[in-house]
Amino acid sequence: MLKKRLFTPGPTPIPEQVMLAMAQPIMHHRHPEFGEMFRRVNENLKYLFQTQQEVLTLTSSGTGAMEAAVCNLLSPKDRAIFVNAGKFGERWGEICRAYGVGTEEIKVEWGDPVDPRLIVDCLRNHSDIKAVFVTHSETSTGVLHDVQEIARLVRDNSDALVVVDGITSVGALELRTDAWGIDVVITGSQKGLMIPPGLSFITLSDRAWKRAGQSTLPKYYLDLQRAKKALDQHETPWTPAVTLLVGLDIALGMIRREGVESVWERHAVLARAIRGGSEAVGLRLLARSPSNALTAVWIPAELDAKRFSQTLKQTYGISVAGGQGQLKGKIFRISHLGYYDELDAVGVISALEMTLRDCGWRFETGAGVRAVQSQMSKADHTLLTKSAMQ
Amino acid sequence: MLKKRLFTPGPTPIPEQVMLAMAQPIMHHRHPEFGEMFRRVNENLKYLFQTQQEVLTLTSSGTGAMEAAVCNLLSPKDRAIFVNAGKFGERWGEICRAYGVGTEEIKVEWGDPVDPRLIVDCLRNHSDIKAVFVTHSETSTGVLHDVQEIARLVRDNSDALVVVDGITSVGALELRTDAWGIDVVITGSQKGLMIPPGLSFITLSDRAWKRAGQSTLPKYYLDLQRAKKALDQHETPWTPAVTLLVGLDIALGMIRREGVESVWERHAVLARAIRGGSEAVGLRLLARSPSNALTAVWIPAELDAKRFSQTLKQTYGISVAGGQGQLKGKIFRISHLGYYDELDAVGVISALEMTLRDCGWRFETGAGVRAVQSQMSKADHTLLTKSAMQ
Repeated sequence: MLKKRLFTPGPTPIPEQVMLAMAQPIMHHRHPEFGEMFRRVNENLKYLFQTQQEVLTLTSSGTGAMEAAVCNLLSPKDRAIFVNAGKFGERWGEICRAYGVGTEEIKVEWGDPVDPRLIVDCLRNHSDIKAVFVTHSETSTGVLHDVQEIARLVRDNSDALVVVDGITSVGALELRTDAWGIDVVITGSQKGLMIPPGLSFITLSDRAWKRAGQSTLPKYYLDLQRAKKALDQHETPWTPAVTLLVGLDIALGMIRREGVESVWERHAVLARAIRGGSEAVGLRLLARSPSNALTAVWIPAELDAKRFSQTLKQTYGISVAGGQGQLKGKIFRISHLGYYDELDAVGVISALEMTLRDCGWRFETGAGVRAVQSQMSKADHTLLTKSAMQ
Repeated sequence: MLKKRLFTPGPTPIPEQVMLAMAQPIMHHRHPEFGEMFRRVNENLKYLFQTQQEVLTLTSSGTGAMEAAVCNLLSPKDRAIFVNAGKFGERWGEICRAYGVGTEEIKVEWGDPVDPRLIVDCLRNHSDIKAVFVTHSETSTGVLHDVQEIARLVRDNSDALVVVDGITSVGALELRTDAWGIDVVITGSQKGLMIPPGLSFITLSDRAWKRAGQSTLPKYYLDLQRAKKALDQHETPWTPAVTLLVGLDIALGMIRREGVESVWERHAVLARAIRGGSEAVGLRLLARSPSNALTAVWIPAELDAKRFSQTLKQTYGISVAGGQGQLKGKIFRISHLGYYDELDAVGVISALEMTLRDCGWRFETGAGVRAVQSQMSKADHTLLTKSAMQ
């Protein structure tokens, strides 16, 4: 028997009660039962995003919501800034270019957070910037970017909209859309929301909605004004992924009962545990400003990277993510985003220890797990109860 | 106890074995297990579409695939013909206009099939037409359009691409993409494919791929060349709706075992049964050329349409679809598309009889069910066995 455990930053594990809810006979998206559920989902999404605005649900991957932000807010020949500090930051630039939107790229070394002052400098040099596209938690590097500070500085220095990719942050990291003055936040379903991939979400501030009314880029399926109009009737303009919404309703209920601040705190504890456990066995972390959603760890040059990954997966049943782009074969990424608790952290670090031992890495056996446990005991002892997520 | 039965043309009922497969722990879309499944899914999709070309899977509703056809094949200021014989034909025109594509509209009365010669006349008057957008089975009216003849005539008279909305036809009606010379066929997941909404599919002929290489309309998430490149690696460019693909794998296996021609024949038998049953109780059909996927029936003017629908749903647990647009409150649509067999047809017509009786409509009780049964006995007696869809 090989028990499989997923520690990838999307898809993340699905709670059992969500899986069972999605296995029920399907409901019709124009029936009152659906509208009732969708209304509840939308209230809980607003709570999760910490916004008074509506959160729109699209049937697409997170990339679809990123594209919706570009094609609904901008017009041909507009100019935008994007921060490229990893694969997903880079994607903002690719989407802008696909639509003929001019871009100013702020390139940051993979593993580093962006210095918000670079964005201010760029805004000062280019007075025609209409939007600033940033990533909160860069999934390819596990780096946290200070979007609170970025939003403050952009608002102080320009009229540009602040658009945040919250794909591995919403439901994991502190993110206060309204209080921080962020105009647009997007996310995907298969991350902190604990359901399978297939849905994405986007919320817009009043001034972003105003801009959407002026945008002339072509759109139809991703037209947010249509989505907003349908939402007012507790519907979607096109047939949505109904079963995923049924699962989302359950998952959002779990988050609501745990409390969003407790969810953020649980992720913080798990992240400290995984980082501590990795360092305790002599490994180095990639991110200089680590996200609490996932931890990127260098594979020591002395080890055979392929053998390392295969042992972890085939012998111990643990799936982590590898490096992407320039980091391929050089790092691995452990996700602790979504449906994870403290004993999951113990398990993955224990498997990491055994894999390292099998691959010939020298360290004190048990040091990693001990570090995880010591982080746990530093955490609030009521946490295990609070995060039971009944 | 009120047992609920869905007879709506999407979502359609999900086979139990598909629901259970989707309730399993999620797999990662970059793992070899996924690639192996996706390869099998793609082989079975090619069989279902009756094409040698690849069938691309998008995470979107069918409308997303319609938009992909427009934005991947055309360029700004291109001109296209679309046939508007219902809500979904109309949508082709809306999407073209959203992208600044010029349109020639062929408007057909709702309930009628398009006369293919109208398309030829239009092509002769407009030599610059780049594509002809048609609907195979118009879901809003239950009308079948002769796309085989349309494709033949368009090919004989122009270089325009023939693009077919097969949303309620693929997996239900005879449709031979390659043999009929159709360039593009699209469909959605929640119809003949028997899985929940959230996936759509599109296949392109060689000449359509050539056109896609020249298209300059903006696209990113719906970029089919990216999807094709990823498919060659048994992947998708963006995270797909993994659980729906797991369900699709099971559903396509069922279709393959039943045989696509037997599937078409099962739908033909069910359609004759539902049409016969409706007429036997004195109701009139809307479509002058009916689709075997669904049957649109006029609600007699003497009846209270609202009471009729509510009785059917609340007393007998049967959900059918109402009319859309200009047909709202005037018709109802019974779906027999996907996971239905003969006794489902008996059940829905029996409920229809009891509802009509409750609403005061006069007819010979049992006449509808008898008509259904007589269609069944005219059908091949091995059909019940063949369509067991083990």
